[in-house]
Amino acid sequence: MPKKVVTLGEIMLRLSTPDFKRFVQADTFDVTYGGGEANVSAAICNYGEQGVFVSKVPDNPIGQAAINHLRRYGVDTQFVARGGDRLGIYFLETGASMRASQVVYDRAGASIADVDASDFNWDAIFEGADWFHTTGITPALSDKAAALTEAALKAAKERGITTSIDLNYRKKLWSKQKAQQVMTNLCQYVDVCIGNEEDAETTLGFKAGETDVTKGELHLEGYYDVFKQMKEKFNFKYIASTLRESHSASDNGWSALVYDGNDFYHTKEYSVRIVDRVGSGDSFASGFIYGLVTGMPMGEAAEFGVAASALKHTIPGDLNHATRKEVIDLMKGDASGRVQR
Amino acid sequence: MPKKVVTLGEIMLRLSTPDFKRFVQADTFDVTYGGGEANVSAAICNYGEQGVFVSKVPDNPIGQAAINHLRRYGVDTQFVARGGDRLGIYFLETGASMRASQVVYDRAGASIADVDASDFNWDAIFEGADWFHTTGITPALSDKAAALTEAALKAAKERGITTSIDLNYRKKLWSKQKAQQVMTNLCQYVDVCIGNEEDAETTLGFKAGETDVTKGELHLEGYYDVFKQMKEKFNFKYIASTLRESHSASDNGWSALVYDGNDFYHTKEYSVRIVDRVGSGDSFASGFIYGLVTGMPMGEAAEFGVAASALKHTIPGDLNHATRKEVIDLMKGDASGRVQR
Amino acid sequence: MPKKVVTLGEIMLRLSTPDFKRFVQADTFDVTYGGGEANVSAAICNYGEQGVFVSKVPDNPIGQAAINHLRRYGVDTQFVARGGDRLGIYFLETGASMRASQVVYDRAGASIADVDASDFNWDAIFEGADWFHTTGITPALSDKAAALTEAALKAAKERGITTSIDLNYRKKLWSKQKAQQVMTNLCQYVDVCIGNEEDAETTLGFKAGETDVTKGELHLEGYYDVFKQMKEKFNFKYIASTLRESHSASDNGWSALVYDGNDFYHTKEYSVRIVDRVGSGDSFASGFIYGLVTGMPMGEAAEFGVAASALKHTIPGDLNHATRKEVIDLMKGDASGRVQR
Amino acid sequence: MPKKVVTLGEIMLRLSTPDFKRFVQADTFDVTYGGGEANVSAAICNYGEQGVFVSKVPDNPIGQAAINHLRRYGVDTQFVARGGDRLGIYFLETGASMRASQVVYDRAGASIADVDASDFNWDAIFEGADWFHTTGITPALSDKAAALTEAALKAAKERGITTSIDLNYRKKLWSKQKAQQVMTNLCQYVDVCIGNEEDAETTLGFKAGETDVTKGELHLEGYYDVFKQMKEKFNFKYIASTLRESHSASDNGWSALVYDGNDFYHTKEYSVRIVDRVGSGDSFASGFIYGLVTGMPMGEAAEFGVAASALKHTIPGDLNHATRKEVIDLMKGDASGRVQR
Amino acid sequence: MPKKVVTLGEIMLRLSTPDFKRFVQADTFDVTYGGGEANVSAAICNYGEQGVFVSKVPDNPIGQAAINHLRRYGVDTQFVARGGDRLGIYFLETGASMRASQVVYDRAGASIADVDASDFNWDAIFEGADWFHTTGITPALSDKAAALTEAALKAAKERGITTSIDLNYRKKLWSKQKAQQVMTNLCQYVDVCIGNEEDAETTLGFKAGETDVTKGELHLEGYYDVFKQMKEKFNFKYIASTLRESHSASDNGWSALVYDGNDFYHTKEYSVRIVDRVGSGDSFASGFIYGLVTGMPMGEAAEFGVAASALKHTIPGDLNHATRKEVIDLMKGDASGRVQR
Amino acid sequence: MPKKVVTLGEIMLRLSTPDFKRFVQADTFDVTYGGGEANVSAAICNYGEQGVFVSKVPDNPIGQAAINHLRRYGVDTQFVARGGDRLGIYFLETGASMRASQVVYDRAGASIADVDASDFNWDAIFEGADWFHTTGITPALSDKAAALTEAALKAAKERGITTSIDLNYRKKLWSKQKAQQVMTNLCQYVDVCIGNEEDAETTLGFKAGETDVTKGELHLEGYYDVFKQMKEKFNFKYIASTLRESHSASDNGWSALVYDGNDFYHTKEYSVRIVDRVGSGDSFASGFIYGLVTGMPMGEAAEFGVAASALKHTIPGDLNHATRKEVIDLMKGDASGRVQR
Repeated sequence: MPKKVVTLGEIMLRLSTPDFKRFVQADTFDVTYGGGEANVSAAICNYGEQGVFVSKVPDNPIGQAAINHLRRYGVDTQFVARGGDRLGIYFLETGASMRASQVVYDRAGASIADVDASDFNWDAIFEGADWFHTTGITPALSDKAAALTEAALKAAKERGITTSIDLNYRKKLWSKQKAQQVMTNLCQYVDVCIGNEEDAETTLGFKAGETDVTKGELHLEGYYDVFKQMKEKFNFKYIASTLRESHSASDNGWSALVYDGNDFYHTKEYSVRIVDRVGSGDSFASGFIYGLVTGMPMGEAAEFGVAASALKHTIPGDLNHATRKEVIDLMKGDASGRVQR
Repeated sequence: MPKKVVTLGEIMLRLSTPDFKRFVQADTFDVTYGGGEANVSAAICNYGEQGVFVSKVPDNPIGQAAINHLRRYGVDTQFVARGGDRLGIYFLETGASMRASQVVYDRAGASIADVDASDFNWDAIFEGADWFHTTGITPALSDKAAALTEAALKAAKERGITTSIDLNYRKKLWSKQKAQQVMTNLCQYVDVCIGNEEDAETTLGFKAGETDVTKGELHLEGYYDVFKQMKEKFNFKYIASTLRESHSASDNGWSALVYDGNDFYHTKEYSVRIVDRVGSGDSFASGFIYGLVTGMPMGEAAEFGVAASALKHTIPGDLNHATRKEVIDLMKGDASGRVQR
Repeated sequence: MPKKVVTLGEIMLRLSTPDFKRFVQADTFDVTYGGGEANVSAAICNYGEQGVFVSKVPDNPIGQAAINHLRRYGVDTQFVARGGDRLGIYFLETGASMRASQVVYDRAGASIADVDASDFNWDAIFEGADWFHTTGITPALSDKAAALTEAALKAAKERGITTSIDLNYRKKLWSKQKAQQVMTNLCQYVDVCIGNEEDAETTLGFKAGETDVTKGELHLEGYYDVFKQMKEKFNFKYIASTLRESHSASDNGWSALVYDGNDFYHTKEYSVRIVDRVGSGDSFASGFIYGLVTGMPMGEAAEFGVAASALKHTIPGDLNHATRKEVIDLMKGDASGRVQR
Repeated sequence: MPKKVVTLGEIMLRLSTPDFKRFVQADTFDVTYGGGEANVSAAICNYGEQGVFVSKVPDNPIGQAAINHLRRYGVDTQFVARGGDRLGIYFLETGASMRASQVVYDRAGASIADVDASDFNWDAIFEGADWFHTTGITPALSDKAAALTEAALKAAKERGITTSIDLNYRKKLWSKQKAQQVMTNLCQYVDVCIGNEEDAETTLGFKAGETDVTKGELHLEGYYDVFKQMKEKFNFKYIASTLRESHSASDNGWSALVYDGNDFYHTKEYSVRIVDRVGSGDSFASGFIYGLVTGMPMGEAAEFGVAASALKHTIPGDLNHATRKEVIDLMKGDASGRVQR
Repeated sequence: MPKKVVTLGEIMLRLSTPDFKRFVQADTFDVTYGGGEANVSAAICNYGEQGVFVSKVPDNPIGQAAINHLRRYGVDTQFVARGGDRLGIYFLETGASMRASQVVYDRAGASIADVDASDFNWDAIFEGADWFHTTGITPALSDKAAALTEAALKAAKERGITTSIDLNYRKKLWSKQKAQQVMTNLCQYVDVCIGNEEDAETTLGFKAGETDVTKGELHLEGYYDVFKQMKEKFNFKYIASTLRESHSASDNGWSALVYDGNDFYHTKEYSVRIVDRVGSGDSFASGFIYGLVTGMPMGEAAEFGVAASALKHTIPGDLNHATRKEVIDLMKGDASGRVQR
Repeated sequence: MPKKVVTLGEIMLRLSTPDFKRFVQADTFDVTYGGGEANVSAAICNYGEQGVFVSKVPDNPIGQAAINHLRRYGVDTQFVARGGDRLGIYFLETGASMRASQVVYDRAGASIADVDASDFNWDAIFEGADWFHTTGITPALSDKAAALTEAALKAAKERGITTSIDLNYRKKLWSKQKAQQVMTNLCQYVDVCIGNEEDAETTLGFKAGETDVTKGELHLEGYYDVFKQMKEKFNFKYIASTLRESHSASDNGWSALVYDGNDFYHTKEYSVRIVDRVGSGDSFASGFIYGLVTGMPMGEAAEFGVAASALKHTIPGDLNHATRKEVIDLMKGDASGRVQR
C-alpha cells in the first residue's frame, strides 16, 4: 500500500528557451508544466508512493495538457478542478556561468487564483492520506487561494494528517507584510517547515544572520539561531533548509540543514554542475517528505532529499525524474558518474 | 519617399504546435508574434513602403521580443509604449483536412488593454502619414482601448489621413450589442471598411443574406445587398470583403469582393493549399491598402490584395513575407509554382 | 460513472522518421508508443470513459516510458505486468503521394510474447468492466499470448462483459493456417467482430469477393456476402469493417460498413488528406465501441467511429487525440476546417 | 558484376529552409549535398549498380562532408580531386501551392570551376566503365570546366563507353550564345541526349513549338519536331525529355517522352504531390540510364525513369532514395500508397 | 538623445553545427549573421544607444536576411548598400574541452569586397554621429575595401568624430607585410586602438614580449611595453586589449588591460564557462566604446567592456544580448548566477 | 598505400535522448550507429588508413542505414553479410554531474548473433590486410559468434596478420565463467591485448589490485602486476589499458598505460569535460592500433591513442571524428582550445 501524499498549489505552463538562448533570440520554446506542489507530487510517485495533486486549471487544451503532464508521471489528478480563465505561465531562460537564469512570470488571473473551497471535497481528497504539503506560493496567489490553503491545512490537521509547507517567498506576488500576516496564521497548522533564512525572514519575520546569498558562503550559525526561534514560536516537528552556494549559474554547492528541536543535522554537500536548477528546492522537499513518510530518521530523510535534489539539478524540466534506486545509490556515495550498462 | 501607413492594435505572442501536433501532444511550441494591425504594418514594409505600428507592450523581454519581431521586418516601432502587465498570447494548433485549426486565446490583462491616450503623441505618430488602419479587435480589448481607437481615428481624420478598419468580430472579447454600439460610433471616422457578411452583421448590425460559412459556397448577392447598406449608412469610400470557400482545413477557395459605391468588383479566385492561414485576412487588407495608397485603381488594388493573401496561405507565421514582385507576378497569372532559379 | 473498457495487447515503441524522410536519411526518430489495443484504450479515455490497458512490458525505462505515454492520456495502466526482455519496436517511414508508408517490425522477443496467465488477476481487471477488446495481433505474438487471449476472452464472457476483436491479420507473425486455427477458436467468445474482407479471409477463411485492395474501389456486395457468412458461423452481434479507398499515400476515401444480422449500414464517406494513417483502424474500433458501450444505435456508433477515424488521419502518432465534441461536430457535417477561435 | 556508371560535375552544399519557411524567416537550414551528376551517381548505386562521381572539392571539412554524403549512399568518390577555394552552395526555399520554390545560387569560385585536366587520370576512372554521364551545367561553370567536360567525353568515346548528357540550361551561368557554341561541340561525343524543348532551344538552338511552360499543357507535337531535328543533326541514339505539368508548387503532372530515331514513346503520366522536386530531372536521367545500361528496351527504361522520378518528388533532398524494387512496383501499377508492413 | 555610433565592415552568414557536432556530422546548421563591426553596432543598441551599420550586401534574400537580423536588434541599416554577388559565409563548429572551435571562412567575392566609395554618402551617415568604429578585417577584404576604410576614417576625423579600430589580424585575408603597410597608414586617423599583443605585432609591427598564447598565462609586462610603443608612434588616446587565458575550449580566464598614455588599468578577471565565444572581442570593444561615449572614466569603461564580454561568452551567436543593467550588475560583483525571478 | 585494418563485430542502432533528457522524458531520439569494432574501423579511416568492417546486419532499411553510416566515414563495408532478424539496439541517456549515463541494451536476437562462418570469405577479407581487431563483446553475443571470432583470429594468424582484442566484459551478455573459458582460448591468437584491470579479472581471471573504480583513483601498481601476469600467460606483444578517473559524469581524468613485456609507459593525463564518452575506449584502441600499424614506437602510439580518445569525449556519437592532424596537435601539447580560423 503506497503512502499517499496530497499537495495543493498552482501548476503552470513553463516555456523555456533551448540551448542557452536568450528570450529575444528564441524561435521555439520547450514546453513543460510545473509548480512547487506539482513537482512534489510527481517526485513522490517516482519513488513508488502515490502523489495526489489538487489544483484548478482552465477547461481548455492547455489546462488538459498540464494535467496530462502530471498523469504521465503517475500523479493522481482526479481532484483537479476545471474552470477559470487561464493557466499561469512562466518563461524561463537558462543561464550559464555568470549569466543567471531568468524567470518571467505571467501568472495573474490564473484559474487557481480564482479558486473556491466548494471546488473541492476534502473528505474524498484526504481519504487514506498520509501527508499534506503546500508552499508559500499558493496563499500568495490571491485571497481566495489563501483561504483555500488555510481550509486545506485545517482539514488535514483535523484528520490527523502530517502537514508541511515550503515557505518560498515570491516578492512579485505579495509584500513582506502581507506574507507575514498570512503565513504566521497558516503555520499554526504546520508540522514540517521548509525554508531558507531569507524565506524565514520575509514570510515569518525571523531575523536571519549575516548570510549574503550572493556570496556563496554558508553561515550555519545564522541558521541555528533562526531554526530555534521558529521551533519556539510554532513548535514545528521538523525544520529544514537547503543550503546553496552559488558559485555561478553553472556550478553550485548544495546541501541541507535539518532540525528536530533537539539536534541539527547538516547533510553531505554536493558540487553540482547544473543542467536545470528550477525545481531543485521542491525536489529536496519531496525527498525529505518521502523519507519521513516512509519512516526514515530525520538525518537519513535529509540525505535522501539532498541527494534527490542534487540529481534534479542534472535533469531538464521542473520535475525530478530520479528514481528511488538512483537516489539511494548516490546517498551511498557513488557520485562517479560511470556509465550504467 | 515611401508611403507611411500607421496601424494601431495588439501584438500577441503566438505559440503554435509543430508538425500538425495537437496541443496535448506538444513538447515544443514555435514562437512568433502577430496581430491584425501588426501583420498589416509588416506587409506594408515588405512591399517597400513604411509601416508604423502603435501599441503597448510590457517592459520585459517578452515585450521586447515582440518589438524585435516587427523590427526584423522593417516596421517602425518607436511609438510602441512600454508598460502594463503582460503580452497577450494565443495558442495555435494547425489543422489539416477535416480537422480545423484551433486558437486558444490568453489575452486578458494585456498591456494594450490597459492603454492610456497619454501614452501616445499623435502629432509625432501621424507626421507625414498617408494612411491609418485598425481593426475591430482593438476597441474590443477594453474600454480604454476603445477610447484610444476613437482618439486615434479622430486624430487621423483631423489630419486628413485616409482611415481603414477591418471589422473582425471576436466573440470572446465582447457581445454583439457592445460591438455594434462601439463600432457604429467608430465607423463615422472610417474611409475604407473591410469585413465579411458575418462581421458586418455582428459588429454593425447589417443583416446578411443566406451565406452559410460552413458550407463553402459564395452568395455574392448577399454581399451586394450588405455593401449597399453599409455605403448608405457610413458613406465609406471603399468596402471590401474576402470570400473564403472552406473545402477543408487544407484546401480553400479564396477571392475578394470590393465596392466603391458604384461598382462591384470580384477578383480572380485562387485555390489555395494551406500551410498557415492565420493572418490571411490581414494580408488581404495590407495588400488592398498598399494598392490604394500607391494609387492603384480599386480593382487592381483588390487583385493585389487577394494575390498577396493567396501567397500568405503558403507562409508560416502571422506575417506575410511575400514581396511586391511575387505578388505582381501572381496577379499576372503565374501560379504554376515552377522553381525560380 | 464512466464506462470501463478493458483491452489486452502489445504496446510498442514507435520510431518514425520526421519530415517525410526515408529510413536511410534519418538522423533523428520521433518517439511515441502504440499498438492496436493500447490505441483503443487511449481513445476511450479521450471520449470521457475509462480505458484500462492490460499488457506486459520490460522492467526498464523504455517499458516505463510506454506506460507513461498511456497514463498521459488517461489510461489505467495498473494491470500492466513488468518483466521479460524487451519492448517490441516498430519503425515507421511516412509516405506521400505514390510512395507508401513503410513499417519495419522488430517485435520478436517482446515481454508480451513471454506472458503468463499468472501475471494477471482477471477478477481485479474485470471488476466493473463493461467491455473487453483485443485484436488478432495479440494471439499471433506467441502461443503463450494466444493462450492468454483465450483466457481473457473467457474470463470476460463468464462475467457477462461484451467482447470485441479486430481481426488484423499480420502476415509476418503467423501463417494463414495457424491464424485460422487460433482465431476460429477465439471467435466463439466474441460479440463484436471488426475486420475487412482480407482479414476475414486470412484469419477466418471466409472467401471474399473481388475487392482488389490496391485499386481503391469498393465492392460492397463482397462485404455483404462475407458478413452474412460470419454471422451465420459465429453469431456475432455486430460485424464491422472500415472501407479504405487508397488513392495515394496522401489521399484516401474512408468509410465503414456495419451489420447486425439484419441490416447493413454504410456510413458517410470522408475524403481524407493524410497526416498519419497508422492507428486509423483502431480509431474506428474505439469510436464504434464507444458508441455501442454508451448506448448509441449501430448506425450512429458507426458514424461516430468513422468520423473519429477520419480525424485520426490528421493527427500524428498512433493515438487518436480527437475529443468527443470534435467527433460529434464532424458527424453533424462540419468538415469545413474553419479556424476554431 | 555491377554496371559502372561514371559521372562528372559539381557537387554543392544545399541549404534549405525547413517547414515551408521563407529565407528571411529561417533560423536553421537543413544541410545536404547534391548536384545533377552527383544525384545520378547516387541513384545508380541505389539500384544496385556502381556510380562513380568525378569532381573537385576544397580540401576542408565542407568538401569532406560533400564526399561523405555521397559515400553514405554508396558512390565511389576516389576520383574526386581536392583543392581550390570553396564548395559551391545553393540555398533552397521550398514553395507550396502558388508560391514557387526559390533557389539562390552561390556557386562562383567553386573548386570545380578551377579544375584542371591534370587533376584526373581517365585511364583509371574509365577502367571497366559502362557509361559516362554529364550535364550542360558542368561546361557552363568555367572555360576550364568546359574543357574538362570535352576531355572526359572524348576519353569516354575513345574507350567505347556510352555517353549521355542532360542539357540543363542555367541562365545565370552563361548566355545562350555561349551555351550553343560549347554544347554543339560537345554533342558530337554524345549518345544519349536528355533535355526538354526549352533546353533544346537555349543550349542547341532548336526551335521549339508553342509549349508555354507556365501553363502546364503538353504539346507533344512540338517535341516530335524538335527531337527529329536533334536526331538529324547529332545522330543521338536516344533522345529523352521529361514532361512536367506545373499545376502548382504542390501538384504536378509528370511523364517522359523518348525517341530512338524511329519511334516515340510517351510514358504513363503520374500526378505527384510534391515533397521536394529538386533533383527530379536527375532522377529521371538516372532511371533511364539504369534501364538502358542494364539492357531494358527504350520504353521500359523510360517507364523506369519516370516512375523513379515520380517517387523522387516525395523524398526530401537532391538524391533519389527509391529502391529498384519500389520503382518496379510503381511501374507495375501500384500507386495506391497502402502501408507496406 | 541616444549616442550614435557608426560602424563599417562586413556582415556574414554564420552557419554553425548544433550540439557540439563536427562539420562532417551535421545535417542542420544554425543560422545567424555577424561580423566584427556588425556585432558592435548591435551591442550599442542593446545598451540604449544607436548603432548604425554601414556595409554592402547582395540584393537577394540572403542579404536581406542579414539586414533583418541587425534590424531585429535595433541597428539602423539604412546605409547598407545593395549589390555585388554574394554574402560572405563562415562555418563554425563549436569546440569543447581540448577540442578547439573551428572556423571555415568562405568570404571571397563578398559584396563588401567589391564596394565603392560612391555607394555611401558620408554626410548623411555621419550626421549627428558621436563615434566611428571599424576593424582590421575590413581593409583586409580587398583594396577597394581598404580604400573605403580610409575614406570613412578620414570623413569621420574631418567631422570631429572619435574613431576606434580593433586590429583583428586575419592571416587568411592578407600577409603581415600588406597588413602593416595598410594599417600603419590607417592608424593615423584612429583615436582608440584595441588589439592584443599578437595583433599589434602582425598588423603594426610592434614586437610583443614572450606571451605564449597557447599556454594561458598573462605577461602584463609585455603589454606595457607594446602599449607604450603604440602610444608613442600613433598618439592613440586609449589603447586596450582583452587578455584571454585559454584553459580549454570550455573554460577561459578573461580580463582586459587599458592605457591612456599615463596609467595602465587591469580589470577584474572573470572565469568563464563558454557557451559561444565568437564575438567576445567585439563585445569588449562595444562595451568599452559604450563606456567612453557615455562619459565613463577609462577604468570604468574597461570594466563595463570586460563584464559585457564575460556575459557574451554565455550567449549563443555573434551578437551580445546582455543588457546594460545586466552588465552593470555583474560589474558590481554579482556573478553568483542565482535565478532572477 | 594505406594500411588495411580489418575489424569484426556487432554494429548497433544507437538511440539517445537529446539535451540531457531522461528516457521517460524523450519525444525524439538522436539516431546513430556504432559498436566497438565498427568504431575502430571508422577511426582508422579518419586517420587516412583503410578500415574494413566485417559483420552481419538484417536485409532491411535499418541494416542498410547502419552500413551507410560507416560508409559515410569511409569504412569498407563490402564484407558485411545480410540476413537474420534484426539490428541490435542500444538506448543511451547521457548523464551529467553525479547522474551517470545510462545504457539500456536491446541486442538479443541480432543478426550478428546468428552468424555463420560460411557468411564470410576470409581469403578475400584478409587480402592485403595489416591488422585484425575484435573485442570481447563479439564472442559474448552467442556461441556462433564466439566460433566466428575464433575462426577469424585463426585466419588472421595463419596469414601473419597482427591481431588485437579489447577485452570489454559485458556482464549482461555472459557470466565470468563463460567469458573466461572462451576468452582464454581466444587469447592464444592475440598479439595486442587491451583492457583494464576489471576486464582482465572478469574475462581472463587475473586478480587485480585494489582499484576501486567508483573512487576515481589510479593504482598503477595493480596494473603493473596484472600486466606482467598477462604477459607471462599469453605472451602478448603489447598490453594496454586506459585509465579513467571518474570525478563525475561531466569531468574525467583520462590516460593510458601500456606495456611491451619490458617497459611500462604511462601517458600524459588529460582532464576531459565530457560531451559524449561512449566509444572512448574504442577511440583509444583505434589510435593505439593506428600508431602501431604505421610504425610508431609503443609510447608514441599510446600517446596518439590517449589524445585521440581525449578528443572523442568531446564529440557526439560513438565514432571518433578527430583527424590525424588534430590528434597530433593535441599530443604536441596544444590543449588550449583556442579558436582555429
